[in-house]
Amino acid sequence: MSKNNKIIPMTENFAEWYTSVINNAELFMYGSVKGTMILQPNGWAIWEMIQKYINIEFKKIGVQNVSLPFLIPLSEFEIEKDHVEGFAPELYTVTKIGKKEIDSPLVIRPTSEVSFCRYFAYIISSYKNLPIKLNQWCSVMRAEKTTRPFLRNTEFHWQEMHSIHETPEDAILFTKTLIDLYEEFVTKILCIPVIKGEKTEGERFAGASNTFTIEALMQDGQMLQCATSHFLNQTFSKPYNIKFQNRNNTFDYVYQTSAGISTRIIGALIMVHSDDNGLVLPLKIAPNQIIINAINYENNKIAELCLNLEKKLVDNGYRVIVDKTEKSFGLKMTEGEYKGYPIQIIIGNKTLIDNNVTIYRRDLREKFDTNVKDVLSNIDNIFKTFDFNLFNRAKSQLSHSVVQVNNIDELNKTLKDKNIAKAYWSGTKDDETKIKELTGATPRCIIQTNAKEGKCFFTNKTSNQIVIFGRAY
Amino acid sequence: MSKNNKIIPMTENFAEWYTSVINNAELFMYGSVKGTMILQPNGWAIWEMIQKYINIEFKKIGVQNVSLPFLIPLSEFEIEKDHVEGFAPELYTVTKIGKKEIDSPLVIRPTSEVSFCRYFAYIISSYKNLPIKLNQWCSVMRAEKTTRPFLRNTEFHWQEMHSIHETPEDAILFTKTLIDLYEEFVTKILCIPVIKGEKTEGERFAGASNTFTIEALMQDGQMLQCATSHFLNQTFSKPYNIKFQNRNNTFDYVYQTSAGISTRIIGALIMVHSDDNGLVLPLKIAPNQIIINAINYENNKIAELCLNLEKKLVDNGYRVIVDKTEKSFGLKMTEGEYKGYPIQIIIGNKTLIDNNVTIYRRDLREKFDTNVKDVLSNIDNIFKTFDFNLFNRAKSQLSHSVVQVNNIDELNKTLKDKNIAKAYWSGTKDDETKIKELTGATPRCIIQTNAKEGKCFFTNKTSNQIVIFGRAY
Repeated sequence: MSKNNKIIPMTENFAEWYTSVINNAELFMYGSVKGTMILQPNGWAIWEMIQKYINIEFKKIGVQNVSLPFLIPLSEFEIEKDHVEGFAPELYTVTKIGKKEIDSPLVIRPTSEVSFCRYFAYIISSYKNLPIKLNQWCSVMRAEKTTRPFLRNTEFHWQEMHSIHETPEDAILFTKTLIDLYEEFVTKILCIPVIKGEKTEGERFAGASNTFTIEALMQDGQMLQCATSHFLNQTFSKPYNIKFQNRNNTFDYVYQTSAGISTRIIGALIMVHSDDNGLVLPLKIAPNQIIINAINYENNKIAELCLNLEKKLVDNGYRVIVDKTEKSFGLKMTEGEYKGYPIQIIIGNKTLIDNNVTIYRRDLREKFDTNVKDVLSNIDNIFKTFDFNLFNRAKSQLSHSVVQVNNIDELNKTLKDKNIAKAYWSGTKDDETKIKELTGATPRCIIQTNAKEGKCFFTNKTSNQIVIFGRAY
Repeated sequence: MSKNNKIIPMTENFAEWYTSVINNAELFMYGSVKGTMILQPNGWAIWEMIQKYINIEFKKIGVQNVSLPFLIPLSEFEIEKDHVEGFAPELYTVTKIGKKEIDSPLVIRPTSEVSFCRYFAYIISSYKNLPIKLNQWCSVMRAEKTTRPFLRNTEFHWQEMHSIHETPEDAILFTKTLIDLYEEFVTKILCIPVIKGEKTEGERFAGASNTFTIEALMQDGQMLQCATSHFLNQTFSKPYNIKFQNRNNTFDYVYQTSAGISTRIIGALIMVHSDDNGLVLPLKIAPNQIIINAINYENNKIAELCLNLEKKLVDNGYRVIVDKTEKSFGLKMTEGEYKGYPIQIIIGNKTLIDNNVTIYRRDLREKFDTNVKDVLSNIDNIFKTFDFNLFNRAKSQLSHSVVQVNNIDELNKTLKDKNIAKAYWSGTKDDETKIKELTGATPRCIIQTNAKEGKCFFTNKTSNQIVIFGRAY
């Protein structure tokens, strides 16, 4: 278990730093099948916290959870042309059951539009049943050439929300509701500041009329798409025949949306907050907020003190664990940092004499002593500023990184400085490809569509549209 | 959505009754791939409740959740001979990724022993790390010739707990802890009385040295295995090389257990409690415990009354929904029964004048009127007896069904009377097969191993072992 790893300094090699943070926090390992993920207890617990928060928000807007099958008949997948073309190279295909070759291949879902469409077509009859908003938490599979923990895996976990509506207006409104919900979650709970906007044509989901996104900045200056929400219009409802009786007593096809957040967000969480001492987690998302580390837990009186303190903190609503292992004290402290416990309470042998304990907070890396009877009020105080500190640090990086650019050289310089670019843009999908070839950057999102007139930094055409460009994970 | 189904009377055709209860409660539909399940919102919500309760109990005994991959390389699966032989006919095999045939086939997990073993082998080093207790909530796939909702599906959901221990004693103790945990959950939360015991040789999990089980009686006299807990000994740890340094500074292979409960338990829940009016759910597991049905929800004053009442009940810890749809009142009542809401509160037009509402409880199918200010105290009272009533009804059926048998004719008669048999047993695995051929019954579990000496009902040999026989799902 103890692999005696160290954290590689971030400035030395960001990618290796990232992997070493993950290894030392024991979040993730690769499975035997290429690129698949084993989410270890510490990693899965973060995902469970994310599920908990999103489920609460989904419930408020009438989204219900369901579970649809892992396999889809290839024949059903092929009904929508763009969809199958987009995913064909990434599909895992089952051709055998037991010893028998099967006549019709089955594919592992790379996403579940097809299954939701079939289900919607079956249950929908009239506008009176609309809207219907369903979600599932599941894993999906897509073949990938290169993989990285959380960021790109052949099997990954996500939630996919699919809804059907009576009118395009209602569907678009819901698409926006969803991206706002994600923004609120990612900024407030994960303490990650984001830029919200609409995707350009080249970056949209295959089959979507509009895609909304929230994008975050990592500490290495690259961006990461945190969540997306798509207006699918009637792209799927027509080929999959999702018809309903409308208010005029004729039939229409439903207007559809989908939206999702995946385990990639854990990658963002790490790359935004963590440091050279290991994982840093906001209090709201930390599965264990406080760890009580005793120097001599074998001493009955110290054990009793630990358990009393644990009870008091738990009774006050905190998530607490007591480290009962027999490790050296220094190792416990270091591992506590590696694993991202926001607060450590250190109980020494002297505590039995002077009633003093040491409190260590991971956001500021500060330690102070306090009487055991004042622990609760001190913890209450730390909670008031901890998440705020993490958010502000990230927000400050983001604010200082946005640079206005007017030509391709400025874009290149901005990227070289590990910043992100803001630019007038009126290019085409082909122009997007050219820029990616020239600079490695892609349009992350359109942040303004009605800006004061300016000139596109690439085409020189006049434009009212301002777009964020950056390199992205 | 409204399919105008009716519930088929249970006495007319139990199997059709079962399906009609599920359809009308909108719990389950088949997916496009043979035998797979779509868990609709009402069905999935029950599974989420089950997950919630089990997670709480698992946490108390130190079980941590993880997530392991859906695919396993066939080559790894083949390492343990009995295991692969048992599952080979049921495996779904991936042979293609994108357009490429792959060299080494991948199988969809029918269970995750293999993945857990690989993971354990990687993380374990010393006895100091033991025991390790991990669990995952996931779906697995096994080919099935005939399928039935919840009871037998090619893809189904479950939790699988896997643990490794330093000694066989510790492992066996934990196997028993697990079956006791399931017994407590199934009897207290699902209100299903069970018979707990050990499996005979022929009924054990392939690879297990011992299997413990809890078995329940359905209303048609057939039994259903609700959960199992296996002592795997070193069956897997040796071939998968899960070694650790023991206290003597030499190496030993870990002693292993596994245990699980699956979506089959929802089938049991239905077949134990439901009736000719539809689904019946215990209060503790019902996703929505109370539905407020208003005759005229469009009336603002009635809507306000509903929402106030909802708030009051929610504030007191109840799970409540308000039916805001525009259906006829009779239809709302019937659907409320179909869907198994334990309590319906009916608000009529007169309520605005006399402040009276009607409360309907699903356990006794009784209605009574009460002043709106007394609703809460009435609900509190119903909660005191509701689950108790369901459990007692089932317990009484179970107690009256157990018949002592002394020969094969008596067993046949017992089964014909839709009862279950208790018998002395000293037969072999082959004898188990013969009995199944002769009667359709299988040994469900050994309930006593040190009984006063008697004669085996089948072999006539003397025996101290008493076994329950029954037909089973």
